[in-house]
Amino acid sequence: YSANMERRAGGGIIFRQLFESISSTYTYLLGDPESREAVLIDPVLETVDRDIKLIEELELQLKVAVNTHCHADHITGTGLMKKKLYGTKSAISEHSGATADILLSEGDSITFGKYCLNVRETPGHTDGCVTLVAGDQSMAFTGDALLIRGCGRTDFQQGCSKKLYHSIHTKIFTLPGHCLIYPAHDYKGQTVSTVDEEKKFNPRLTKTLEEFVEIMSNLNLPKPQKIDIAVPANLVCGLHDI
Amino acid sequence: YSANMERRAGGGIIFRQLFESISSTYTYLLGDPESREAVLIDPVLETVDRDIKLIEELELQLKVAVNTHCHADHITGTGLMKKKLYGTKSAISEHSGATADILLSEGDSITFGKYCLNVRETPGHTDGCVTLVAGDQSMAFTGDALLIRGCGRTDFQQGCSKKLYHSIHTKIFTLPGHCLIYPAHDYKGQTVSTVDEEKKFNPRLTKTLEEFVEIMSNLNLPKPQKIDIAVPANLVCGLHDI
Ligand SMILES: [Fe+2]
Ligand SMILES: [Fe+2]
Repeated sequence: YSANMERRAGGGIIFRQLFESISSTYTYLLGDPESREAVLIDPVLETVDRDIKLIEELELQLKVAVNTHCHADHITGTGLMKKKLYGTKSAISEHSGATADILLSEGDSITFGKYCLNVRETPGHTDGCVTLVAGDQSMAFTGDALLIRGCGRTDFQQGCSKKLYHSIHTKIFTLPGHCLIYPAHDYKGQTVSTVDEEKKFNPRLTKTLEEFVEIMSNLNLPKPQKIDIAVPANLVCGLHDI
Repeated sequence: YSANMERRAGGGIIFRQLFESISSTYTYLLGDPESREAVLIDPVLETVDRDIKLIEELELQLKVAVNTHCHADHITGTGLMKKKLYGTKSAISEHSGATADILLSEGDSITFGKYCLNVRETPGHTDGCVTLVAGDQSMAFTGDALLIRGCGRTDFQQGCSKKLYHSIHTKIFTLPGHCLIYPAHDYKGQTVSTVDEEKKFNPRLTKTLEEFVEIMSNLNLPKPQKIDIAVPANLVCGLHDI
C-alpha cells in the first residue's frame, strides 16, 4: 500500500468534484487534511459563492486557484475568489497569454500541504493548456485536452489538432493505466475515466494522427456563445467585468 | 491500512458516479475488479444505453440493478436493464409496494464479488426508502433520505417528516464521520458529502425534530411533473410503458 492520493474523507486527501451546469464545467477542490491547504482547479464565476462556502465549511485555506487554460465557454472564478479569500493566488500557463500571480510551465509543481500537482503542458486545444497530475500519478486533471471519450475542439483560439494528438499521446497516455482522468467538462453525466479506458475507448484518440486531424476538421461546431466575453475576461482572471 | 472500498481504478473497487441531467439523478456503478460482478444503484430509463455501454466497456457483469426507493421524478432503468443485460436482477425495498426480483429489508446484503452493500431501512421520504451502506462503511448511498445539505421531501407518497428525521439520525448519522454520502440527487453540482459534514452543516437535520417538522411542512414545493407517470411505472421496475 503506497500513500496514494485516495479519495476517502478519512485520512487521505480531501477531494471534491463540483459541477456548473450552464457550461457543464467541473471544478475540483483538493485539500490536505493536516495542513488544511487547498487548491481549486477551474472555478466558474457563477459558482464562486458555493465553492467558497464549501472551502470554509471544510476549514480549508485556499492557496491556489488554477485554470487549466484560458476558457472560452465560461468566465473563470479565480479573480473573484482572490478578492473574497485572503491569500489565494491565481495560476495559469505562461503560454496562455493571461495574467495571473503564478505563471506555470512544464515541470512546475503546485504544492498544498504534503500533496502536489505537477504541471504537464498539453497544448492543442489552446497553446496554454496544462494537465495537472497528482504527485503519485493517481489522478490527472486534463482540462479541455482529454475529455471522457472525447477531447477539446481545435477550431478556435490557438487550436491545432496535430499538437493536441501529440500532447495527449505523449503527456497523458504515458501516465499509469489506472490513473483517473478528471476533465474540465462533460456533457453526458460522466464524472471520471482512466488512462486505460481512454486509450481503449476514446473514439478520437484511438485513431491515427491523420484520421484524428480529419475528424477534428469536420466537427462543424457552433462558435461558443460566450467566447467574445469569456476570453478577454479570462485573460485577466475573470476580473474584466466585475 | 484496512482493505477499504477505495475509489481508485487500480486495485480497489471500481466506482462510477453518473448523472442524469433532466431529473438531476445520480446513478452509481460499483464493481469488483476480480470477479467483475457489479451493482448499479438508481439507473434512469433515459440513460440506460450510456450505462450499459460503460458496463460492457469495463467488462463488468451486472448482477443487481437496485432502486433506493420508488422514484416519483423519473422512470427507473432497472426493467429495461434486465431486458438488455442477461442475468441482471432488479431489487427494491419490500416496503415500496413495487415488484422486483429481490425484495430488500433491514439487514439484507447485496454482494458483488468480495464487496457488499448492506441495507438499512430509512423511511420518511417514502415507506420503502433504503440506504445502502458499503461493507466497510466507507460510503453510503442514501437515496432521497439524506441529500447534500438537504433531504427528500415528505409531502407525497408515504412522506412523513418525523419518520425521516428519525431514520437519518438513527441509521445514517450513526455511521462513521468520514463515511461518504452519495445521494440520489443533487441540484447544485455537488457530488458527495460526509456524515460529519451533514451532521454539522445540513440546514434541516441540524434542527430539533419540532423545527424539522415545521420546515418540512412549509416547503410548498410544486408537485413533481412526472409523478403520475413515474410512480405507476416504477412499481413495475419501469416496464409499465416500454
Ligand atoms: Fe476550453
Ligand atoms: Fe424520490
